[in-house]
Amino acid sequence: MSFDRGASRPADQTTVRRANLGVVLRHVASAGPCSRAQTAAETGLTRGTVSSLVSELVALELVRETGETTSPRGTGRPGAALELADVVVGVGLEVNVDYVAVSVEDLRGAVRYERRSYRDNRSSASSTVLDRLGRAARSALDASLREGLRPIGVSVAVAGLVEEASGTVVNAPNLGWVDLPVADELEARIGVPVHIENEANLAALAEHWAGAAVGIDDFVCVFGEVGVGGGIVLGGRLFRGFHGFGGELGHVLVAAEGCECACGSRGCLETFAGVESIARAAGVSAVEGRLRSLTDELVRRAEDGAPRVLGALDDAGRWLGIGLASAFNLLDVRAIVLGGCFGPLAPWLVDGVRETLEARSLAARSGSFVVLPSAFGDVAAVRGAAALSLHRVLDEPWTLGVPNGPPRPLLAPTARAKRRGKEVAIGRH
Amino acid sequence: MSFDRGASRPADQTTVRRANLGVVLRHVASAGPCSRAQTAAETGLTRGTVSSLVSELVALELVRETGETTSPRGTGRPGAALELADVVVGVGLEVNVDYVAVSVEDLRGAVRYERRSYRDNRSSASSTVLDRLGRAARSALDASLREGLRPIGVSVAVAGLVEEASGTVVNAPNLGWVDLPVADELEARIGVPVHIENEANLAALAEHWAGAAVGIDDFVCVFGEVGVGGGIVLGGRLFRGFHGFGGELGHVLVAAEGCECACGSRGCLETFAGVESIARAAGVSAVEGRLRSLTDELVRRAEDGAPRVLGALDDAGRWLGIGLASAFNLLDVRAIVLGGCFGPLAPWLVDGVRETLEARSLAARSGSFVVLPSAFGDVAAVRGAAALSLHRVLDEPWTLGVPNGPPRPLLAPTARAKRRGKEVAIGRH
Repeated sequence: MSFDRGASRPADQTTVRRANLGVVLRHVASAGPCSRAQTAAETGLTRGTVSSLVSELVALELVRETGETTSPRGTGRPGAALELADVVVGVGLEVNVDYVAVSVEDLRGAVRYERRSYRDNRSSASSTVLDRLGRAARSALDASLREGLRPIGVSVAVAGLVEEASGTVVNAPNLGWVDLPVADELEARIGVPVHIENEANLAALAEHWAGAAVGIDDFVCVFGEVGVGGGIVLGGRLFRGFHGFGGELGHVLVAAEGCECACGSRGCLETFAGVESIARAAGVSAVEGRLRSLTDELVRRAEDGAPRVLGALDDAGRWLGIGLASAFNLLDVRAIVLGGCFGPLAPWLVDGVRETLEARSLAARSGSFVVLPSAFGDVAAVRGAAALSLHRVLDEPWTLGVPNGPPRPLLAPTARAKRRGKEVAIGRH
Repeated sequence: MSFDRGASRPADQTTVRRANLGVVLRHVASAGPCSRAQTAAETGLTRGTVSSLVSELVALELVRETGETTSPRGTGRPGAALELADVVVGVGLEVNVDYVAVSVEDLRGAVRYERRSYRDNRSSASSTVLDRLGRAARSALDASLREGLRPIGVSVAVAGLVEEASGTVVNAPNLGWVDLPVADELEARIGVPVHIENEANLAALAEHWAGAAVGIDDFVCVFGEVGVGGGIVLGGRLFRGFHGFGGELGHVLVAAEGCECACGSRGCLETFAGVESIARAAGVSAVEGRLRSLTDELVRRAEDGAPRVLGALDDAGRWLGIGLASAFNLLDVRAIVLGGCFGPLAPWLVDGVRETLEARSLAARSGSFVVLPSAFGDVAAVRGAAALSLHRVLDEPWTLGVPNGPPRPLLAPTARAKRRGKEVAIGRH
């Protein structure tokens, strides 16, 4: 019998303090404004422990006192109200077939800066596209620093297979990128560490944290654009698979003898339900080459009741249902979120998805599930990218600095930037 | 932004002691025989803590002293060697289309009792089949108690959708069971609590703990018999899905317009790759109606090089590859284990599975994977059922009793058995 199962490190006082630092931070995040006494009463920690942990969180600029006092709710005398601070921000980037986007979000969930610029990235060299991304990141970082914000991480959403550890885009068929070291290339351009992630994964996280799937810990986000991406959240955590290549819902088989797919297989869901495929079937074409205009036009004509458009959308919903039925039989989730272009198109897709799922999946029929339109549509990926580093801090606040010491400059210049003697305006002014 | 993420209970000294009790137990399990001093050195816990935790584990009858001493390996004077005890056992049952099986396993992984009796369960009333299961369980429990063993749990493997919490088989198409309260029915027959689980899930656990997938924490076990089951292990843990209906690999679509499946859909993997489908395509029929004889006969004729049999097996491997490609695109696992009847047939299936997976899955092609024949074949499910309660104890040893107190009688008579005033010979003699 093998007993090799991971949890073999002993626990000690540091484990306890770190766990409780997270407990207090998440309590303030979900229940704030709240006093130290309320936090103690509601978490079960002693007041002394809470006070010490709050001091640490204030020093890390994660929590602040509002200046007001809270009502005691039976916990003794009123205390200073605590809430999340709005100084720490995350920076999200997104590169897609026809645009580059950037978003800066603070710990309270407010968007502090957001831009999207349309360019044809499919027919541009990868270095040109990376230059565009780098300029967008630089502008967002500069604007944040001017406002006195403290960026703690830059994440990039890419439509494709991503190797997170090395920061490499292994294969992004719709951009034509193969084994491209995107994190290194961007670091070289902006001088700070960059993290890359699959866009549908980030869209799923955004929907989970603040969108359609708040409170739903097990769901699949199907993210439509030229391709069809999938983000899987299981037990409240993003599921990435062993190499990080999981969640590729667009390449689940829906017709064994279907037409060839950019991935090298045939009959993949994406060949039936990508926005260009739907538009072709509906007889709709793009304005100025912008893909978003395809979605807008499909919505407009569907609202007008155009039979060919309604037929194409119904078919797309049924193909989505077939692909999702296989996913459902394996994953048994509670919800499907229709994201990206499927968000605005959801009113015409939902019935086909639901009926096909019920007909095709014993698991779906035996359990219960909901089909939800995305709250963020096609900004979900960049919002998820912005929030990613913030959520890492909420999970493990101690990574932000030494207990009760000064906050570390988190977006420190990389070794490479330092070697170049480049002036990098990141950190606090 | 939503911050509702589970880990909101504070940690305390009990958390630490429980975690460390598990650390010591798993160290003895993986490194034993070993002394207290070695355990301290290798886990990073103090000797005093280890001694106290070992006393608790000895009182719980999970660890014992071998009577020998271990070599010091630079950790000071020699000490009494510790190893897992062999008193605590788990009881596993399996009900299948044409047999009922039972297995009793101890904490050291030794099988202490095992029986299988062939009966046609498909054309028997469910109450008759439950009587058969109950008699098998009773005989195994009595034999265990005669040997002075201490049974701590009874688990039943069923081919179908199982609702673990209520102990109900929601749908077992090949047995014709719908919404059958199997746990309650068996409890009423044997007088002790019963836990039910999907058979392919248990087969996957058996392969992970002691079979083909030891050391592999992310894999899919595809379990062939009349139907095709799937057990998914992710991050070293069984993945069951939200309602517990996940892992139904047999109902992943491989041909949208394929023939009808018992699940109500069409074109499911199981309609192409179940053992009866393969045998039909190969022109092989069963001896005395036993399904196992189909596998034996397929192996015999494949070894003889019979072209029709080789063709049928190659086709089955390719259908498995198509179904697994969809699973791979979603789950990105490291390995496929070919279990149940696919174990002995693996030599003729592996190439088709591998080639199809590489052609059909970008994730499989971009990462790396292995296709492994099962170590346990068709006894995997009952072995996994026997080991299930043992592994729960290895994860959470404190559930076995109060610290340093006497071990609780774990298979206590259920309330219902007590109400009936039945004499239930469970516990220690």
